[in-house]
Amino acid sequence: MSGIPDLVAIEAMDAADVLRPMRERFVLPEGLVYLDGNSLGAASPAAFAELTEAARQEWGQDLIRSWNKAGWFEMPVELGDQLGRLVGAAPGQTVVCDTTSINVYKALHAAMGLRPDRSVIVAEAGSFPTDLYMAEGVASTRAGTVLRLEGVDAPSIEELIDDSVAVVLVNHVNYKSGELRDMAALTKKAHEAGALIVWDLCHTAGALPVDLDGSNADFAVGCTYKYLNGGPGAPAFIYVANRHLAEARQPLSGWWGHARPFAFEQSYAADAGIRRFQCGTQPILSLRALKGALDIWNDVDMKALRAKSIALTDLFIQLVEAKCGAYGLTLESPRDGTRRGSQVSFAHDNAYQIMQALIERGVIGDFRAPATLRFGFTPLYVGFKDVWHAVEVLEDILRTGAWKEARFAVKSAVT
Amino acid sequence: MSGIPDLVAIEAMDAADVLRPMRERFVLPEGLVYLDGNSLGAASPAAFAELTEAARQEWGQDLIRSWNKAGWFEMPVELGDQLGRLVGAAPGQTVVCDTTSINVYKALHAAMGLRPDRSVIVAEAGSFPTDLYMAEGVASTRAGTVLRLEGVDAPSIEELIDDSVAVVLVNHVNYKSGELRDMAALTKKAHEAGALIVWDLCHTAGALPVDLDGSNADFAVGCTYKYLNGGPGAPAFIYVANRHLAEARQPLSGWWGHARPFAFEQSYAADAGIRRFQCGTQPILSLRALKGALDIWNDVDMKALRAKSIALTDLFIQLVEAKCGAYGLTLESPRDGTRRGSQVSFAHDNAYQIMQALIERGVIGDFRAPATLRFGFTPLYVGFKDVWHAVEVLEDILRTGAWKEARFAVKSAVT
Repeated sequence: MSGIPDLVAIEAMDAADVLRPMRERFVLPEGLVYLDGNSLGAASPAAFAELTEAARQEWGQDLIRSWNKAGWFEMPVELGDQLGRLVGAAPGQTVVCDTTSINVYKALHAAMGLRPDRSVIVAEAGSFPTDLYMAEGVASTRAGTVLRLEGVDAPSIEELIDDSVAVVLVNHVNYKSGELRDMAALTKKAHEAGALIVWDLCHTAGALPVDLDGSNADFAVGCTYKYLNGGPGAPAFIYVANRHLAEARQPLSGWWGHARPFAFEQSYAADAGIRRFQCGTQPILSLRALKGALDIWNDVDMKALRAKSIALTDLFIQLVEAKCGAYGLTLESPRDGTRRGSQVSFAHDNAYQIMQALIERGVIGDFRAPATLRFGFTPLYVGFKDVWHAVEVLEDILRTGAWKEARFAVKSAVT
Repeated sequence: MSGIPDLVAIEAMDAADVLRPMRERFVLPEGLVYLDGNSLGAASPAAFAELTEAARQEWGQDLIRSWNKAGWFEMPVELGDQLGRLVGAAPGQTVVCDTTSINVYKALHAAMGLRPDRSVIVAEAGSFPTDLYMAEGVASTRAGTVLRLEGVDAPSIEELIDDSVAVVLVNHVNYKSGELRDMAALTKKAHEAGALIVWDLCHTAGALPVDLDGSNADFAVGCTYKYLNGGPGAPAFIYVANRHLAEARQPLSGWWGHARPFAFEQSYAADAGIRRFQCGTQPILSLRALKGALDIWNDVDMKALRAKSIALTDLFIQLVEAKCGAYGLTLESPRDGTRRGSQVSFAHDNAYQIMQALIERGVIGDFRAPATLRFGFTPLYVGFKDVWHAVEVLEDILRTGAWKEARFAVKSAVT
């Protein structure tokens, strides 16, 4: 195994890791190798502290006065700006609210409203499914809308973009393979055809730097409970480029999107800015945990994050292929780190059982049907020795056939 | 002041109050009279305990495994059934998710889809405004939809219901006056015209018993952070009568509403039951606080709740009119307790300033533009002596003119 780093070399990588101190900002059970931060990010003392303050002092003691005094009402836009910095959005264009699915609905409606003479939505068959389901929902309320899918109607999304297209809805990082799109190039391609673009950043935000403003993106959505570590089901975000805000309308026109929400007017009048993409009252406790998690990012150098992410995923691929190459694993992610998000997937006919065996041994990744082992590498709290250890366990499970034990074949309801 | 109970009589009311022990289940600051539980319900040790367990153990230690192990994924339907019991809904018809505004959108779309040959939505000009804004949003996605308003197009909602009406959207308890509708009678009236009905229960759930199933209601929505004490911005609920579930469709067709959410299929297929009214991933931490709050209701007799609510509000009206009658207050709520929710409103030209002065003195109600003093009486934690004390303070503020101090006239952004 010449060229494969040994444990000494790997410990040196950890020692040289500028992000290593960030691990202390998170709560992780002793002995666990957590490679599922791309599904649910880890908790942090900062998130717990915000949650406790919001619950015990602000709710418990200050009660209704906290809407003003603790700034609850302003949290969605303030957190939006704070998050915006991580995805290249200048202030005033991002708001944290609702769910990714609902924000897809808003963005698609707004985009189609800006292109009233067009009726085609382009998306990917390989998209995280809820994006497609929401596009179907939008189509059900806009007669004549046509959905064109990469992987069904043409092999590549670029071929589907023409002057009938109102909007392109695309994942920046594919949830399954981790493959990365070129944001600036695809946005330019959409614009050249007169279309708008909605970027789904669920597997991007907090995983690698992107530049929404610099790429001239129109809309973006994403979740905050993966790489941003906002907590289970933490509210999602939506970005709308400044140049569209005055005209962009979305039909979830609730009171939090009103220009004067506390005037209790009879008719809707959209706020002039990003607040028009809000709808109703937000879950403050969940938002406050997210606030704690986002504060950690104030101290993160996004270039260092990206460099470490590529180094971790490169190392994982290298070690798996060197040590487990005989056991039928096939790399499903791009081999080129610059074309990959912060995750690595391998296909295996028995992926479900192998992942169950890994989890039982304290290496947590996840399974995606029908046959994908998916491993996420959060640069803030995953180290190089974690990668080493994960591959050691994987090799042992494959070599010994431990995954063949009957209990690993029983599928649970939620996977 | 013959006939007006004195402090001795009021202390006897507290002593005889069967719900008095419930107060110990809530956290309330010493010395505060909290008459704003109709805006934000009080916190509880039960809610804090659930929140701590969900954050520190389930998120912090068990991480992604909690979706199964801690039952996170099932919470919306389990809490829906638990809440359903309080509004007369048999299991399988209620789900806790998203916001009231978003659930209004789903319900209106579903109702109109069930009445495809009709295009009229009937609502109230005096509705909590977000219901009207969401109806506008629905209308913007369904060509030809007409909105008819009680208070604009006719004096009473009953007069607006004819065979062109697809759906009636109505508040069971008016947010401002506390006036109560007859659920069974208005539902019958709508059905006789072939229309469906959506009941907004924001100021009903946890304030008084209702019988959705027994009233033959079609849809209902409501929030959980008022009388149910679920915490700031806790997720809302939606009820869909069993007889409509197979046919009712709503366009926020996210993956949590899919029949097989973890099969990651390319096309949407709605779940057969109430889950089709879910959309995306829910804020688990906020849901868990709500779980703690709802557990308290397992020990509440809803008839006793209603009796105490009427007694509290009757007493408040009686004392205010007896002691503050000279200062220009006008009752805005029904005088008949059986026609009133669990709140009392008085109009006064200087309502904003008076409420600010009350809050400074530790009596918390709220102001609703342009001239309403609103007081909510949560039977679980408001006692008769609280009512007495609130009126004493109000009388003092009015008699001395303390509300005229300049600082009370400065309006804050959120009121």
